Amino acid sequence: MAIKKPLGDRVLVKPLEPKEVKKGEIIIPDTAKEKSQEGKVIEVGRGKMLEDGKVVPLEVKKGDRVLYKEYGGTEIKIEAEKYLILEGEDILAILK
Amino acid sequence: MAIKKPLGDRVLVKPLEPKEVKKGEIIIPDTAKEKSQEGKVIEVGRGKMLEDGKVVPLEVKKGDRVLYKEYGGTEIKIEAEKYLILEGEDILAILK
Amino acid sequence: MAIKKPLGDRVLVKPLEPKEVKKGEIIIPDTAKEKSQEGKVIEVGRGKMLEDGKVVPLEVKKGDRVLYKEYGGTEIKIEAEKYLILEGEDILAILK
Amino acid sequence: MAIKKPLGDRVLVKPLEPKEVKKGEIIIPDTAKEKSQEGKVIEVGRGKMLEDGKVVPLEVKKGDRVLYKEYGGTEIKIEAEKYLILEGEDILAILK
Amino acid sequence: MAIKKPLGDRVLVKPLEPKEVKKGEIIIPDTAKEKSQEGKVIEVGRGKMLEDGKVVPLEVKKGDRVLYKEYGGTEIKIEAEKYLILEGEDILAILK
Amino acid sequence: MAIKKPLGDRVLVKPLEPKEVKKGEIIIPDTAKEKSQEGKVIEVGRGKMLEDGKVVPLEVKKGDRVLYKEYGGTEIKIEAEKYLILEGEDILAILK
Amino acid sequence: MAIKKPLGDRVLVKPLEPKEVKKGEIIIPDTAKEKSQEGKVIEVGRGKMLEDGKVVPLEVKKGDRVLYKEYGGTEIKIEAEKYLILEGEDILAILK
Repeated sequence: MAIKKPLGDRVLVKPLEPKEVKKGEIIIPDTAKEKSQEGKVIEVGRGKMLEDGKVVPLEVKKGDRVLYKEYGGTEIKIEAEKYLILEGEDILAILK
Repeated sequence: MAIKKPLGDRVLVKPLEPKEVKKGEIIIPDTAKEKSQEGKVIEVGRGKMLEDGKVVPLEVKKGDRVLYKEYGGTEIKIEAEKYLILEGEDILAILK
Repeated sequence: MAIKKPLGDRVLVKPLEPKEVKKGEIIIPDTAKEKSQEGKVIEVGRGKMLEDGKVVPLEVKKGDRVLYKEYGGTEIKIEAEKYLILEGEDILAILK
Repeated sequence: MAIKKPLGDRVLVKPLEPKEVKKGEIIIPDTAKEKSQEGKVIEVGRGKMLEDGKVVPLEVKKGDRVLYKEYGGTEIKIEAEKYLILEGEDILAILK
Repeated sequence: MAIKKPLGDRVLVKPLEPKEVKKGEIIIPDTAKEKSQEGKVIEVGRGKMLEDGKVVPLEVKKGDRVLYKEYGGTEIKIEAEKYLILEGEDILAILK
Repeated sequence: MAIKKPLGDRVLVKPLEPKEVKKGEIIIPDTAKEKSQEGKVIEVGRGKMLEDGKVVPLEVKKGDRVLYKEYGGTEIKIEAEKYLILEGEDILAILK
Repeated sequence: MAIKKPLGDRVLVKPLEPKEVKKGEIIIPDTAKEKSQEGKVIEVGRGKMLEDGKVVPLEVKKGDRVLYKEYGGTEIKIEAEKYLILEGEDILAILK
């Protein structure tokens, strides 16, 4: 894996293709609203730096399945697989 | 239910269709103004992080009927039902 | 009444129609400037949260007649009557 | 007078028509720059709330003649007279 | 003089016409860049209010010759003479 | 080398051309998303100044291979070689 | 020299013409990126004021050769020579 550590409150996420989404949990965004997508957290940065320099860890951790805003982040390819580097605030929820 | 925990001050809301709105409480937004809609709070995030890292719980709790800004949030579908993930500030009021 | 509590520093206001405005107090906005309108405060939120998490109560209270910016807020109807949910800062002045 | 108290750091001002401006003090804004106008302070709000909740009184007081930005504020009419509700920062200077 | 006191960190400045600029100091702004102009400080406000309510005096004082951003400020005329009310940050430098 | 020290939290980076990227680590941005590129950190500024004046060192150090936002930064040439001066927040991750 | 003191964290800079740039250090910005230029620091302001009123000196000092953003600042002419007044953050790096 090429990514050692995302910086700040960034998170490396592997998007889950619709076929990988388990039955009974299908999440399909509607048209008028902001869209979201499922993914798996691969690596997390050290956290968000507050105004006094203190660093607060992220709410998500390695291995979490998450829902994130579809149009956020920077897309990269590692060994032909698509990954995303997201800002912490692009992640909407942790999934069961 | 697929959503375990909305992040930050986000809230998972089930929109209430007009037919579910009880009589004597019909809320119909007018044309010129920002619109709103009724919903039920299904799950709440841990709260809003202040600049010193302290987390303040939301004013709404699981089960509350709320009024929220119509154009806020991210729409998702869970087992064919529509839900919304809203930012805390998209919620305008708690309903009786 | 359907609204139990506006959230944050929001205020539920009943707009006063021009005919309800008492004589000798007619307030008619001019064309070039931001417009305002009179209303009565029906319910107030708990107040504005400061950056340290402290909540400061609003300057207006239930029953106050107020002047507010005409284009602010979210319009709702409760039992066929028009109401507004305003942010605290949309309210310009308390009227006598 | 219908206005009891402007809210926050707002100020109720009576614009002074050019004819009321005393001789030797004529203030005529040029074309390319932001324009200003003279007025008299009728009522002041309690002041500006700082981030820690402390309220700082305004620099102007009831009765002051002031110079304010021409395009700021909300215009109202009270008993056929034009008044303005200005934000504290729309007032540029106190006049002699 | 009609202006008693500029408010906040504002400064009353008398623009110096090119002919008044001393020889060997001609300051002519180029075309592509933000332009500047020379002036003389006539009156200064009490200073800039910080977030904790403390007021910090301006770096310029009455009588200083200054260089300011050409497109800042509000232009006024006092007894047929042109003056400017500038924000403190519109002033770029003190001149010798 | 002409650059002695980048200022603040800026970082001097030498972009790595695709041919220099090691096998099994090819990073190719897709079309719809923000793009990124690999580079090597040549020099780092002293860090980011917080609101209380304290300076926090950067997460990256001289010699790190990093992934940065493609459209950030200022491009310079030193002895015919292309370099970039990036803001600290333009750097997305440290690479292995 | 007409400039006595730049205000705040501003810096008076003498741009260096390409011909003055020493060999082996030619810095030529490319087309797609933000451009930069070399200059010499002639005078510095007292520094940046923090939110608590404390003033932090600049990282650059009189005599430093610096790289700055090409489109920042205000251009002035002093005795037929071109100078720039830059904000502290327009300066990217100190050069050797």
